[in-house]
Amino acid sequence: MEIIKEIEKMQQISREEAAAKKSIGFVPTMGYLHEGHLKLVEKAVDENDITVVSVFVNPTQFGPEEDYDEYPRDLERDLSLLRERKVDYVFYPAVEDVYPEGYATYVQVEKGTDVLCGRSRPNHFKGVTTIVSKLFNMVIPHRAYFGKKDGQQLLIIRQMVRDLNMDIEIVACPTVREEGGLAMSSRNKYLSSKEREAALVINRTLEKACSWIEEGERDGWEIKKAMEREIKAEPLATIDYASIVSRETLQELGVIKGPIMIAIAAYIGSTRLIDNVWLEVT
Amino acid sequence: MEIIKEIEKMQQISREEAAAKKSIGFVPTMGYLHEGHLKLVEKAVDENDITVVSVFVNPTQFGPEEDYDEYPRDLERDLSLLRERKVDYVFYPAVEDVYPEGYATYVQVEKGTDVLCGRSRPNHFKGVTTIVSKLFNMVIPHRAYFGKKDGQQLLIIRQMVRDLNMDIEIVACPTVREEGGLAMSSRNKYLSSKEREAALVINRTLEKACSWIEEGERDGWEIKKAMEREIKAEPLATIDYASIVSRETLQELGVIKGPIMIAIAAYIGSTRLIDNVWLEVT
Repeated sequence: MEIIKEIEKMQQISREEAAAKKSIGFVPTMGYLHEGHLKLVEKAVDENDITVVSVFVNPTQFGPEEDYDEYPRDLERDLSLLRERKVDYVFYPAVEDVYPEGYATYVQVEKGTDVLCGRSRPNHFKGVTTIVSKLFNMVIPHRAYFGKKDGQQLLIIRQMVRDLNMDIEIVACPTVREEGGLAMSSRNKYLSSKEREAALVINRTLEKACSWIEEGERDGWEIKKAMEREIKAEPLATIDYASIVSRETLQELGVIKGPIMIAIAAYIGSTRLIDNVWLEVT
Repeated sequence: MEIIKEIEKMQQISREEAAAKKSIGFVPTMGYLHEGHLKLVEKAVDENDITVVSVFVNPTQFGPEEDYDEYPRDLERDLSLLRERKVDYVFYPAVEDVYPEGYATYVQVEKGTDVLCGRSRPNHFKGVTTIVSKLFNMVIPHRAYFGKKDGQQLLIIRQMVRDLNMDIEIVACPTVREEGGLAMSSRNKYLSSKEREAALVINRTLEKACSWIEEGERDGWEIKKAMEREIKAEPLATIDYASIVSRETLQELGVIKGPIMIAIAAYIGSTRLIDNVWLEVT
């Protein structure tokens, strides 16, 4: 496994691998890898000749009051986990090379980015689509792997790839959960054991929403209100949103139909967690 | 020479040519080709194994009051000129394929795009960087050719390519002029013979500014005022701007030094024309 820090070296390696007819799978991460990331990595290793994993905590997707500085980092542990999975290249660029002085260009999806997480994190998705575009140009992959846990992110990246005609296949992978159902997240590290218990309300509420829909409920506002009640009943939880949206437009649905995403964001103590499920509703 | 309309076919051809180790040169145009375009094409043919020329009048770079509908088009003539120059592929996509329903993604350089032409054409460069990004992903070139006549556009595209780590060489080509000095432009077609005469004031004023600098003048505001006076003396001309800017920041310079661009935009009758010269000032 080779560790690459220089952007141009990464591009050169990718050009050479592609010229040698190797397919390149890419898993962009912010490091502090958990089982969710590793499932993406295993799938990429499985489906491609060459696998590149990037580890880069991207400053432009954090708000000024958010946890960029404290975001957990542990490169040595990440490298050993990736080595075990037979990753070929770990791309680990420096912030000052990714965003040099005078940097001024942004990629923005202008629909679906001001709802859900975009409402409380106004420039978050602009930062995400910008860094993902940049990483795609640095790594030049054939396929890129994203987890459904960041559901809105995945849908926005798919829109970006389609809109900008990027010649890359976006592969969506299921959310990996801890025992009890809590979605894996690097931010789970912030939780006390009491909070970890309380955080289960998120997944439990999503499961309830699924069962209501299964039982025939199609009124989006009713389910939204019921989800909000569930979360408010947990004293350690503060709700950010509980929404049922179309996966095509990311807009909330009054009548539930078609490909939908049920999504929740809530603070457990001071830690913001998100989770979602995807359903096809007829 | 093959004419390609489908985006995916263009990508497939480019992938195949690249896999066969052919270098791809790309000249993006809005058609209605003149000698300026053809010089870019000749250079691309000269420097690459394969040359792709796109002909696409891009709606997103025109303002609501601008000449998108009337912009001159003559595909048959364009094709015959390109055939003569031994172009390999003409890429001629349909507007509804380039911007399908639900389209929402834009690429934007946030510095240097609100000055000069960006001041009177507020979304122009956002449209330009978006379509150029898209065309780069459709054609996947090794080199792309742009004329210095659209000087601000060229500098902004260079910034975008650098910022987004696009693996493409941007080749700048000198402005081609008609006898008398008028910069070639598809919009020159709009000019009456009287206006064509009057339009010479633009190039003449740029040449005067150069000679003032050559004689030792370094006060940007003095030269700016003098350029404005020159243009105002032409009854058929209405000035949009006359500016001396840094080529690095595109900001106006009080003290002239370093790599600069002297740029003018003016209406001759109702036709908006632009021109510029580049100098290195010590």
